[in-house]
Amino acid sequence: MTSDRVIETLRAFAAERDWGRFHTPANLAQSISIEAAELLECFQWGAEGDPQHVRDELADVLTYCLLLADRIGADPSEIVLDKLEKTRVKYPAPGEAAE
Amino acid sequence: MTSDRVIETLRAFAAERDWGRFHTPANLAQSISIEAAELLECFQWGAEGDPQHVRDELADVLTYCLLLADRIGADPSEIVLDKLEKTRVKYPAPGEAAE
Amino acid sequence: MTSDRVIETLRAFAAERDWGRFHTPANLAQSISIEAAELLECFQWGAEGDPQHVRDELADVLTYCLLLADRIGADPSEIVLDKLEKTRVKYPAPGEAAE
Amino acid sequence: MTSDRVIETLRAFAAERDWGRFHTPANLAQSISIEAAELLECFQWGAEGDPQHVRDELADVLTYCLLLADRIGADPSEIVLDKLEKTRVKYPAPGEAAE
Repeated sequence: MTSDRVIETLRAFAAERDWGRFHTPANLAQSISIEAAELLECFQWGAEGDPQHVRDELADVLTYCLLLADRIGADPSEIVLDKLEKTRVKYPAPGEAAE
Repeated sequence: MTSDRVIETLRAFAAERDWGRFHTPANLAQSISIEAAELLECFQWGAEGDPQHVRDELADVLTYCLLLADRIGADPSEIVLDKLEKTRVKYPAPGEAAE
Repeated sequence: MTSDRVIETLRAFAAERDWGRFHTPANLAQSISIEAAELLECFQWGAEGDPQHVRDELADVLTYCLLLADRIGADPSEIVLDKLEKTRVKYPAPGEAAE
Repeated sequence: MTSDRVIETLRAFAAERDWGRFHTPANLAQSISIEAAELLECFQWGAEGDPQHVRDELADVLTYCLLLADRIGADPSEIVLDKLEKTRVKYPAPGEAAE
């Protein structure tokens, strides 16, 4: 399934429950941080990270990331690739000319 | 572009720079938290969040999420939809029978 | 120097700059998370953590913690010891009766 | 109670349970981030933050901060005041000469 279909499903899910009014960019950014820490907790004290738990918490982070991307009119794949180009310039691969 | 193509691009990018050895699940989870806070910083003290800055920081969070998904053999769309089903049961839409 | 003297110094510092109006509990909690991630960044990718950098970032987290404690009328030492008692019940030391 | 007495109490608590071996600086920094997000969660979606819940979560962040300060041989009050001097230079109060 593509990002677009997943975002449509998430939009519909939120709309059915009238949750959209909470989904301001600031609130979504906050939720991304909260969920990111729950994901990090899977590895607290050097733990390996229970596979299902990691999948669930990573899913939560991704969910809020997709909702935020949708809210600010950004295409997830596009912004990742755009940022990658900036990183490519900053960290050229061996053999590439530094700019 | 689909998630698969983006992940291939990220994999190649990391491989060219021999960064894969740092990409343990624990390290990636940690980086997701670090980037999530940089995204949150766009909204610190009630700021609106500069659009380009938000796009870049969200891209960083997504990038590490995709790298972690790849590392643990998870399909991003699939785990988001799987988690959504658990949330659907926990928060049924008005009219749906609670389970 | 005791916590009280440090908090007085922080209060005066913020007042001189008219920053108090930004210091709502929610904003301070957000800043604690943002600074906590900057501290975590000292150890990203398995790094040891440059001593001065760790001291500075830990100081930032502590600073916002003390400002939040002050804002909600909590004594830092008291709430730490109160919480410790709850943890003591949950994790009795070997030899202590579990409750 | 002063910071010193609180840290002694925390040290004894950890020692009784043989938890010291988990308390590397990197692990403690990670726990500070995890707890900071639990504190932030008190304010998620614009909530006011239940007073007792905020006290407990703030206590958790402070606890790990004090354990980390102790682990790296830093005095909490001293590093906060040291960092404040750097901030004072960066943000002079109205009337103070900028440096």
